[in-house]
Amino acid sequence: MGRSYVKEIGQSLGKEVEVKGWVHKIHDLGRIAFVTLRDKTGLVQLVLDEKQKEGLRLEMALEVKGTVSENTKAVNGLEINVEQHKVVGEAHYDKLPFSVNRNEKTHLETQLNHRTISLRNPQIRAPFIIQEEIVTAFREYLRGEMFSEIHTPKIISSGTEGGSEMFTVKYFDSRAFLAQSPQFYKQMMVGAGFEKVFEIGHAYRSELHNTWRHLNEYVSLDVELGFIEDENDIMDLEESLLKHMIQHLNQKCKKELELLGVSLPEIQKIPRIELEEAREILLREYDKKSPAGNLDAEGEVLFSAYVKEKYNSEFVFLTRYPVSKRPVYTMPFEEEPSLTRSFDLIFKGLEITTGGQRIHNYDQLKENMLTFGLKPEDFDFYLETFRYGMPPHGGFAIGLERLTMKFCQLENIREATLLPRDMKRITP
Amino acid sequence: MGRSYVKEIGQSLGKEVEVKGWVHKIHDLGRIAFVTLRDKTGLVQLVLDEKQKEGLRLEMALEVKGTVSENTKAVNGLEINVEQHKVVGEAHYDKLPFSVNRNEKTHLETQLNHRTISLRNPQIRAPFIIQEEIVTAFREYLRGEMFSEIHTPKIISSGTEGGSEMFTVKYFDSRAFLAQSPQFYKQMMVGAGFEKVFEIGHAYRSELHNTWRHLNEYVSLDVELGFIEDENDIMDLEESLLKHMIQHLNQKCKKELELLGVSLPEIQKIPRIELEEAREILLREYDKKSPAGNLDAEGEVLFSAYVKEKYNSEFVFLTRYPVSKRPVYTMPFEEEPSLTRSFDLIFKGLEITTGGQRIHNYDQLKENMLTFGLKPEDFDFYLETFRYGMPPHGGFAIGLERLTMKFCQLENIREATLLPRDMKRITP
Repeated sequence: MGRSYVKEIGQSLGKEVEVKGWVHKIHDLGRIAFVTLRDKTGLVQLVLDEKQKEGLRLEMALEVKGTVSENTKAVNGLEINVEQHKVVGEAHYDKLPFSVNRNEKTHLETQLNHRTISLRNPQIRAPFIIQEEIVTAFREYLRGEMFSEIHTPKIISSGTEGGSEMFTVKYFDSRAFLAQSPQFYKQMMVGAGFEKVFEIGHAYRSELHNTWRHLNEYVSLDVELGFIEDENDIMDLEESLLKHMIQHLNQKCKKELELLGVSLPEIQKIPRIELEEAREILLREYDKKSPAGNLDAEGEVLFSAYVKEKYNSEFVFLTRYPVSKRPVYTMPFEEEPSLTRSFDLIFKGLEITTGGQRIHNYDQLKENMLTFGLKPEDFDFYLETFRYGMPPHGGFAIGLERLTMKFCQLENIREATLLPRDMKRITP
Repeated sequence: MGRSYVKEIGQSLGKEVEVKGWVHKIHDLGRIAFVTLRDKTGLVQLVLDEKQKEGLRLEMALEVKGTVSENTKAVNGLEINVEQHKVVGEAHYDKLPFSVNRNEKTHLETQLNHRTISLRNPQIRAPFIIQEEIVTAFREYLRGEMFSEIHTPKIISSGTEGGSEMFTVKYFDSRAFLAQSPQFYKQMMVGAGFEKVFEIGHAYRSELHNTWRHLNEYVSLDVELGFIEDENDIMDLEESLLKHMIQHLNQKCKKELELLGVSLPEIQKIPRIELEEAREILLREYDKKSPAGNLDAEGEVLFSAYVKEKYNSEFVFLTRYPVSKRPVYTMPFEEEPSLTRSFDLIFKGLEITTGGQRIHNYDQLKENMLTFGLKPEDFDFYLETFRYGMPPHGGFAIGLERLTMKFCQLENIREATLLPRDMKRITP
């Protein structure tokens, strides 16, 4: 007899099944006990007699054979009358660090200290089921649009943006860095003939802040595509991608979204508003001053509220960032060279994407490096691609954990990370 | 008019199309020129007149509009009579570092120094198209079997195998390491309720050898599953997975396999042979002595030849490795405690997988750490999972580049890596 998953046993009414999982709850009535078994797919009630229930403890791992019957009082209206069971994973504890079967709010740091225990709670695990489907939707959509998935090195010799905020690695006899982003490499792979690429990989930021929205190691969903007209092609792509993603999640993660009590935003058309206009609106409507050439975190929240009110959109593209606020490779407007063909995407008050068109002309890029105080010879490995027919191109990156956090309406990015890394945390 | 990919233009005979790509070849006949355009999907002949061909150079990026007609002499029997064309990516070079349009064997180091140029050659890019489909097959098969894809940290506080051969990272005020494998974390995620997990991510080895089969940063296809019977479940899974992979590749990568002139092995049943027996066979049949409790590289090659001859299999599982040659978490046989429930998978003379059943009993694992001279308190974050009902489990890992190299019959693992990292190479 093969193993049945809990979510499937409704198909086996009156039949014998084998299920496997953990003891989620024990309701001991003396002569019998109702034990809730939890597997990857859900919860089911087991009925055990006096002898069978002996020695059972919460969170033990069991293999169980029994017959499925209806019980309207049980979860899902089903129960399994146990014929045989075996403890395959023993309990070696005095006391659980916190309850797994109740949704009491354990302090996040405590949850993270005992990560493999806290993740056993279906509500705490749900965001990761959604996260996996975010990645699946991202990948499937892009592959359908002829993008290639690439894997580029995370150990690099020099930074994409000058080398600040990077972790250093001792690499044999030399010093190397952990990549902040695959920016240069994804552009290079466009030029290498892949034309359209994406990467799902770790990115590293040695940033000195410990906030609810920062991680020092995170998963970046990176996209880059060649032969574009301008930055609007990039925003069009991201908009379609997000629409697909939301549709996919509504279809695949109904149960998890319900468990979390959240619903996903609908996307019609994402407004594209110039940064400068956003700054003026904030000043006019909210008396909110913004830093030069940018919005701050508070400004992002306020402006999101404004866009929600005015355009009924949870998303907004901020466009035309000034050259001074963007990396060296960002394409400026020919007719207005102090502004760039770049954008941020704000979702419910949080920046989840930076993107734009890149400079593809070799001389212009080299010139821009000098303007930025960089030495072109330090970037020969990157510049070389631009000498051999680099088409107009651009791309964007989405922070996976940020997107997960916002979709799931979590309060802290660490809740969207299996094993977060921050300034103070490097274990488990 | 939307862009057509070269592979699709056969559907547009007699019609106008827009194509985009790079100048692959120029055959100048004076009054007209035949120019081969290369895009992500293939090659097509363009016909340009005297004026149109002016200034065209190899590897420029073009956008072209023209009408598709038949020409039996052209590649694929089609050509495009160009009406309009635009250079969108200029040439800024005196001379190409090597030819892109001929399959002359450029020295590998030269190829790697100019990686974005060498990858433009369809034959050099082909292994990466195959590699992407290896990953796709791996992921699709496992998701179909209810596995979850996870992302675990690569910055870690202590090694899975004692800390040798790890790269060190300066992590704020402390020292951290780059993960050699997600071993501990994948086990922990099994225990955290995911039950069956896989990860496609980077692994780092600070090994001091620069060979044709080693990389210091590589992509590891990691698998771990709970509620198993024993190590045979793991081998069964890997065998089915490989069968699926080969079937998938034969279907999706016909063109690339042909371009490389290779065919993939057929898998019936992969022989499972005890290591000790393999050592004896090598001694008896080839007078080949093996190191204690292992095979060396030459032994793997010889034994593969033996298995091919005797079992008509390109793959062989070597089983029952001694405790002394396996990591601390490896499950020993109860009835023969000096041997473990572990295996290697050898494919055409090269080890591509290590796997096995792990110890799931808390006391046994702690005990084993002491036997191995490790301090259990250093591994509290890992051991904790085993105190709360850890089911029998095991898994394996496949080196993606090694598998790609062997499937594509490449000579060097760097040919299966977009941007390899080795002792001497950290750029591009």
